[in-house]
Amino acid sequence: MTRHILSVDQFDRTYLQNLFDHADRLRHLPRSSQRSRLSTSILATVFYEPSTRTRLSFESAMARLGGSVLSVENANESSSATKGESIEDTARMLQGYADAVVMRHPEPGTPERASRVIDIPVINAGDGSREHPTQALLDLYTISNELGDIDNLNIAIVGDLKYGRAPRSLALLLCQTRGTQVTFLAPPAVPVGDDIKQALERNGVRHREATSFEEIKDADVVYQTRIQRERFSDEESYERSRGYYVIDRSVMDTLKPNAIVLHPLPRVDEISPEVDDDPRAAWFRQAENGVYVRMALLDQLLG
Amino acid sequence: MTRHILSVDQFDRTYLQNLFDHADRLRHLPRSSQRSRLSTSILATVFYEPSTRTRLSFESAMARLGGSVLSVENANESSSATKGESIEDTARMLQGYADAVVMRHPEPGTPERASRVIDIPVINAGDGSREHPTQALLDLYTISNELGDIDNLNIAIVGDLKYGRAPRSLALLLCQTRGTQVTFLAPPAVPVGDDIKQALERNGVRHREATSFEEIKDADVVYQTRIQRERFSDEESYERSRGYYVIDRSVMDTLKPNAIVLHPLPRVDEISPEVDDDPRAAWFRQAENGVYVRMALLDQLLG
Amino acid sequence: MTRHILSVDQFDRTYLQNLFDHADRLRHLPRSSQRSRLSTSILATVFYEPSTRTRLSFESAMARLGGSVLSVENANESSSATKGESIEDTARMLQGYADAVVMRHPEPGTPERASRVIDIPVINAGDGSREHPTQALLDLYTISNELGDIDNLNIAIVGDLKYGRAPRSLALLLCQTRGTQVTFLAPPAVPVGDDIKQALERNGVRHREATSFEEIKDADVVYQTRIQRERFSDEESYERSRGYYVIDRSVMDTLKPNAIVLHPLPRVDEISPEVDDDPRAAWFRQAENGVYVRMALLDQLLG
Repeated sequence: MTRHILSVDQFDRTYLQNLFDHADRLRHLPRSSQRSRLSTSILATVFYEPSTRTRLSFESAMARLGGSVLSVENANESSSATKGESIEDTARMLQGYADAVVMRHPEPGTPERASRVIDIPVINAGDGSREHPTQALLDLYTISNELGDIDNLNIAIVGDLKYGRAPRSLALLLCQTRGTQVTFLAPPAVPVGDDIKQALERNGVRHREATSFEEIKDADVVYQTRIQRERFSDEESYERSRGYYVIDRSVMDTLKPNAIVLHPLPRVDEISPEVDDDPRAAWFRQAENGVYVRMALLDQLLG
Repeated sequence: MTRHILSVDQFDRTYLQNLFDHADRLRHLPRSSQRSRLSTSILATVFYEPSTRTRLSFESAMARLGGSVLSVENANESSSATKGESIEDTARMLQGYADAVVMRHPEPGTPERASRVIDIPVINAGDGSREHPTQALLDLYTISNELGDIDNLNIAIVGDLKYGRAPRSLALLLCQTRGTQVTFLAPPAVPVGDDIKQALERNGVRHREATSFEEIKDADVVYQTRIQRERFSDEESYERSRGYYVIDRSVMDTLKPNAIVLHPLPRVDEISPEVDDDPRAAWFRQAENGVYVRMALLDQLLG
Repeated sequence: MTRHILSVDQFDRTYLQNLFDHADRLRHLPRSSQRSRLSTSILATVFYEPSTRTRLSFESAMARLGGSVLSVENANESSSATKGESIEDTARMLQGYADAVVMRHPEPGTPERASRVIDIPVINAGDGSREHPTQALLDLYTISNELGDIDNLNIAIVGDLKYGRAPRSLALLLCQTRGTQVTFLAPPAVPVGDDIKQALERNGVRHREATSFEEIKDADVVYQTRIQRERFSDEESYERSRGYYVIDRSVMDTLKPNAIVLHPLPRVDEISPEVDDDPRAAWFRQAENGVYVRMALLDQLLG
């Protein structure tokens, strides 16, 4: 196991099982016991692309473990970046100040570049359209937590499968599961990539592409995602994709009674708020699970 | 008593007395005892409108109580906001990360909207021109602390009474006091609103409008406020109001020897720095009191 | 000894020796012992000019000592600043919230203005092109730590000696050393100022100006600095200065085997990354030393 968290490729079954067990243990500890675990550690959260949700989730995890946080909310406007410092130099600086670095960057591979020159753990919190490995971990942990298993499930991934790094990372992580059937349901402009399909095939995961909610009515998990407006070059193309597959009351009615619906959030209008009270609506529990998974991750890396 | 702090309407005499007593107790505790009170709690401060003063005051209060803070300095530029997330979704996310939320927002009623969907306390740190309830609490606490009483006082409220939410919230809170005489002294363009006057009348608080400092020379408390430039549509109108009622040495000379002068800060030039050393100048003590009142508030909500 | 840290002028030999000894002690304490030193203190870091490096260095120092931080990353865009509050009023507000203030400001003398009206320590973290006293402290501490002595050394200061406050502050601090030979090597557009040369002369420090790396081949310390692009009025003039004195493998080959090369960072291209692995390349150790020196400073001021 590497010390850096850069890609879902690095997680195997044993790692996942240990991490999820550890998350379960930590979430049930009294707050005072949680707090004693990393009370002398310092985490730097460095975001070159804004992300309130992911940043606060990591910072909440570190606070619960009793650690300290050095926060750079807009690293792209920071003095080092505007003065032309390389990411390698920034990473070496951070190594002098903190015990681990959480980094989001619009350019794929940047967290990995940072990880190559320093010894403290670097955690990829999203690199462009490529990966968001801790999101995939919390997604799979939520499936495990809600359904009691990560194997033999029928999982539908819906929405922007071209630009979304969350569905991309989840699909890749599903390579570690057994007996899984993945169904992709994407607007025509943002289909799932061939690389994802090939990875699933290499790992013996069955997959297919659907064109209606009717085709995913047997799903155990429906993973809805936002159309990534900021990655579209023109507004018209965005508008065509948005609203293509919206989950509302009538779609919920077609799903199994024990299915769960997930969403990495934030949502715009791809899930109607009218279904928020449905017990199968798991997206806010999923967000909270992010804190427990990141607590487990930080505790394993720094504890 | 509600768990949320949204409006001065919700405070009654008993609440105020308990809160002020608690603030008195906390401020005199040794730092190490203060720190042990909320050592496992997490506060999120989320500002959709910048406010160094109010944000740092809450964060200082939380730090003294030993708690942790998740800070969003420019929530309006945050990823969730720019991606189109609703305030309800943002609130539910925050509930997964923190134990209480302090929120400032330019649109009146937004903290209340957040409070309707979550169980953790939401504290309104200013919603547009409407309310700023914790400012009113620290203002009244300062009056109590400086003068030993909150009843039977002659209180002059000066400056921008149209756009200023601090004088508005204080006036409403004075409905809880007895034997109070309120005098409003505002430039013609920014008079006190009829709703405030009606609220005072309903609660039997005497009030009148003045047009010169001469008319408030018997005041026990002079509450000066800044003309809210950012709420004026044109510069000329702002300039006419600014400088209308400035407190300088000659005005101080007309006030009673045991009066106090307050200001919610920041000030521009409505109080001349030449009077900063006057013992009746209480505005910096008032700012410090904000920390104690917010400590008491957080301790009651989370302790 | 004053409680404020405003200028290198205020440091004498005794102060430096105590501070460096204290930094040595603190860095070798176990983390849990470090943490117990300032566990009830609050530091405000207020930056009117962005500086990820200096801000995080102070915040890391405070976190290691167990204290809390109130952070204002972009004070120039803060509500107080944009509403027209004076620096004196801002300082008095901060005094109500924190136990010490670290301040960076583009206008020389601003931290000193703040220090005149409050009792808590104010630490100058850079005021325009004037001074950056804690940078000079960490630079001299690094020399002491790397070479075992601060006296009888041949020290070359290279790069932007006109606009750079780091080389300026270091040169002034060298007035406290004995037997020092300072050599300045600056592009023609950004020479060392007469005030610096006169200060050195008043203190009996030998100095000279060089025009090639050949002339500094006997240096014990080479202090390279970045051309301060943001202080140039035109791009052409910046380009002429940049690239004038670059340290690459061939320059390293001319230096003594036991010399050290320092840089206050961030660097752009004035040191080639190809020499990062040279054992004489001390700039990342220097950055880390900043945390220990600032721990010692904060511990002396607040402990």
